[in-house]
Amino acid sequence: MNGGEGPNSYTHNSKQQRKGSYRAKVLLSNSIQEKLTVENKLNTVLCIADLGCSTGTNTFIAVQNIIEALELLYRSRSRGLDTDQIPEFQVFFNDHSSNDFNTLFKSLPPNRQYFAAGVPGSFHARLFPNSSLPFIHSSYALHWLSRVPIEVMDESSPAWNKGRIHYTNAPKQVGEAYATRFAKDVEFFLSARAQELVAGGLLALFLPAVPDVLSNSDTVIGTELDLLGSCLMDMAKEGLVSEAKVDSFNLPLYYTSHKELKELIGRNEHFTIERMENLNNPKKHVILPKPSMRA
Amino acid sequence: MNGGEGPNSYTHNSKQQRKGSYRAKVLLSNSIQEKLTVENKLNTVLCIADLGCSTGTNTFIAVQNIIEALELLYRSRSRGLDTDQIPEFQVFFNDHSSNDFNTLFKSLPPNRQYFAAGVPGSFHARLFPNSSLPFIHSSYALHWLSRVPIEVMDESSPAWNKGRIHYTNAPKQVGEAYATRFAKDVEFFLSARAQELVAGGLLALFLPAVPDVLSNSDTVIGTELDLLGSCLMDMAKEGLVSEAKVDSFNLPLYYTSHKELKELIGRNEHFTIERMENLNNPKKHVILPKPSMRA
Repeated sequence: MNGGEGPNSYTHNSKQQRKGSYRAKVLLSNSIQEKLTVENKLNTVLCIADLGCSTGTNTFIAVQNIIEALELLYRSRSRGLDTDQIPEFQVFFNDHSSNDFNTLFKSLPPNRQYFAAGVPGSFHARLFPNSSLPFIHSSYALHWLSRVPIEVMDESSPAWNKGRIHYTNAPKQVGEAYATRFAKDVEFFLSARAQELVAGGLLALFLPAVPDVLSNSDTVIGTELDLLGSCLMDMAKEGLVSEAKVDSFNLPLYYTSHKELKELIGRNEHFTIERMENLNNPKKHVILPKPSMRA
Repeated sequence: MNGGEGPNSYTHNSKQQRKGSYRAKVLLSNSIQEKLTVENKLNTVLCIADLGCSTGTNTFIAVQNIIEALELLYRSRSRGLDTDQIPEFQVFFNDHSSNDFNTLFKSLPPNRQYFAAGVPGSFHARLFPNSSLPFIHSSYALHWLSRVPIEVMDESSPAWNKGRIHYTNAPKQVGEAYATRFAKDVEFFLSARAQELVAGGLLALFLPAVPDVLSNSDTVIGTELDLLGSCLMDMAKEGLVSEAKVDSFNLPLYYTSHKELKELIGRNEHFTIERMENLNNPKKHVILPKPSMRA
């Protein structure tokens, strides 16, 4: 994501993701109350991680929601007992090592009630010690692939994505290559998290997805990416950018569906799905008429 | 410290501190072998912090030395047992939130055998949860004061440091103001660490100091700072910079002595000094003739 705090920064261009964060608050709170198993012992430290945090401020809102829910959980379980039984919180903010952690750290809420740490690295691999986290959160991040599928950049492959920058309206082999990459990424992601979470811990995942009944080509986000690719191709035709450059450029983004994600999580023996809901962001996935019927 | 990797960066201007790091290796290793109490249980995570880490590479060398010593400790205590009993390591790199963590994270050793995290904030306050660290290290950092003593910037105070940028060759009130600030900083530092260290944990401190028998004015570093202040005053006399600006500028650096530091640590009820040695960096504190006798 773009670092800093300028007009093109993530900080000033992440309202869409923030909407998701607000909507997720109730879901997070209820899940923590009902599903999280925490140890009831004195002087514990409760560690939380937010994976794919970028530079803020969305991550701070999400973390605050989680901490409030955890405090409520402790208070309700230790009713009448000393408030010292509420643990100290340590929050790990994770993103790629190229993320602008300097901006993130300078933006940390000054009156936060937790110890903050930044963890650089890909969440498709291990980031934390074994059994060290009871709660892991990731919002608007897992749809970023670890890399563009190799096949879509290979001229000799039937999945070569010539003239497009995404799999929207592409031959089915392109979409399949993206889906295969996403499946592997989810496998690596869950495998790492399974080792890092304590037994009974919770993993809260929020990610943009398409409804089961729609293909990516029928959604607003799919159409927007298709339009962007089409603009780049127009620029190539006018000689403003080389066509080979556009052909070689593909966005490492994948929009899964409820059904597909459920199946991928089901393949991992260490996780069970305790709750899976649609946040129903109505502007995100309007059903569009078929491309041929559009003006 | 200057961030990035340019010619004026800390990365390319920290050889002096690195010398200290090499010399400290044996001392660190011996202290860990002889003094550190660690739990002998399976699947433990061993957390280490380096306070005042700046941007590398010195911090990576120090951390590697510490981890090698800790591994040796575990191997020697569990001779013949499964190597799985060697814990996983999590290393917290701490410095001010204005530190260039982006450069630090990009420079992390790719084949490191630990999980890395950055912790932004002043080490004169709490940075970590209670009893969460068995080993804390800080090298060439604690001589940086939390702030310039207020009195030395106050025109109405007998400790006003007019015409100088440090306490070298200053009236005794200036030196006393610096010493008082350092004593408070050490108090805050130790008080925070006492809460963060586990019982039986070790705090390894390396800091530049002056020999007990010398005053700061008789050391190379003191003389260098005096010379720098004198140059700024010459520039003020030539109208290149305002004299008021030089008067208001003071370096927040304090060089303690073996005796003084021992006394300050002794005031804290939570720590005992297990070992205190002079690293004998011969170039650092050459005894100079008295200022009046210099050419």
